[in-house]
Amino acid sequence: MKLLEDRILSDGEIIDGKILKVSNFLNHQIDVAFLDQLAEEWAKRFSDVKIDKVLTIESSGIAIGASLARILKVPLVFAKKHQSSNVNEGVYSAKVYSFTHEQYYNVVVSKKYLSAGENILLTDDFLANGKALHGLIEICGEAGAKVVGAAIAIEKGFQNGGDELRKAGVKVESLAIIDKMDSDGIKFRS
Amino acid sequence: MKLLEDRILSDGEIIDGKILKVSNFLNHQIDVAFLDQLAEEWAKRFSDVKIDKVLTIESSGIAIGASLARILKVPLVFAKKHQSSNVNEGVYSAKVYSFTHEQYYNVVVSKKYLSAGENILLTDDFLANGKALHGLIEICGEAGAKVVGAAIAIEKGFQNGGDELRKAGVKVESLAIIDKMDSDGIKFRS
Repeated sequence: MKLLEDRILSDGEIIDGKILKVSNFLNHQIDVAFLDQLAEEWAKRFSDVKIDKVLTIESSGIAIGASLARILKVPLVFAKKHQSSNVNEGVYSAKVYSFTHEQYYNVVVSKKYLSAGENILLTDDFLANGKALHGLIEICGEAGAKVVGAAIAIEKGFQNGGDELRKAGVKVESLAIIDKMDSDGIKFRS
Repeated sequence: MKLLEDRILSDGEIIDGKILKVSNFLNHQIDVAFLDQLAEEWAKRFSDVKIDKVLTIESSGIAIGASLARILKVPLVFAKKHQSSNVNEGVYSAKVYSFTHEQYYNVVVSKKYLSAGENILLTDDFLANGKALHGLIEICGEAGAKVVGAAIAIEKGFQNGGDELRKAGVKVESLAIIDKMDSDGIKFRS
């Protein structure tokens, strides 16, 4: 999506040639009207599937998830990250490794808010190695809910998370896929 | 606001006579259209002040903040919670005590996203003792930004956070103020 690619080029920052920061419009300071435009695009791309709920993960996914849930007229559920492994019986949980923080955490959703047979659209700001998304998929599996796809803002295509999920049959719709990124700039997948 | 009071009565859960859970519409599963209605009410109540930015704190404030920023047509900034005290020079930070988790954490906002002279509307899902809100106010003070008020969904009026802030001159607009809560039910401030 050219709109997002242009915004990444104008407002994104590449740090040490490998970390992309988009915290001035996507995940620290948030341009809500811009997120609404991303959500409209996802709504088009998923217009052929029934969606009962949007599921994301705190914190960066929440504002995106809210825009998406609004346009789809469905509830948003956000999974919580718990550092402790004390998980009670009232929740679905999955263990996820964070490369950023170099530790495991638990992704947790109350059993009240995911039900068997529901059609779930996942969303997040970034997709790189796909660990967080795998955690959400595992939780949907525990609940007996069906993952209809993943609406991703920025995919790091040079890591394998997105392509692995596509191979596994998940409909992953990333609005900007970065195939190469270094101190010289960014190359998007066309 | 009757709309929110009614929703708390129909969907809220009181646990052990003292904890109010509203996680099926406000802060785990989120009814986005409902949040938009709350945001409309806040926009009316703050229609006499200039607002440049909405500031909230992760994670429960983000969806509310997004609804509010959308209607006000301004950016949303959300403060991050850091457990470590290693705070770098690029951020404003304040130390906040969490009664829920019985520990201190740092509330952090990048210096890029708060500037001197900006008019900041704070927002959050709950206001009880006011510690988190004080942290945000401290950060705005560091930045030289002006706090024009606080848009709160649910205030626990039987704790003193809201009334203390009002005495200190902060315009606190809570859409439901609970004056009493026990196993018999909830009494709202009229």
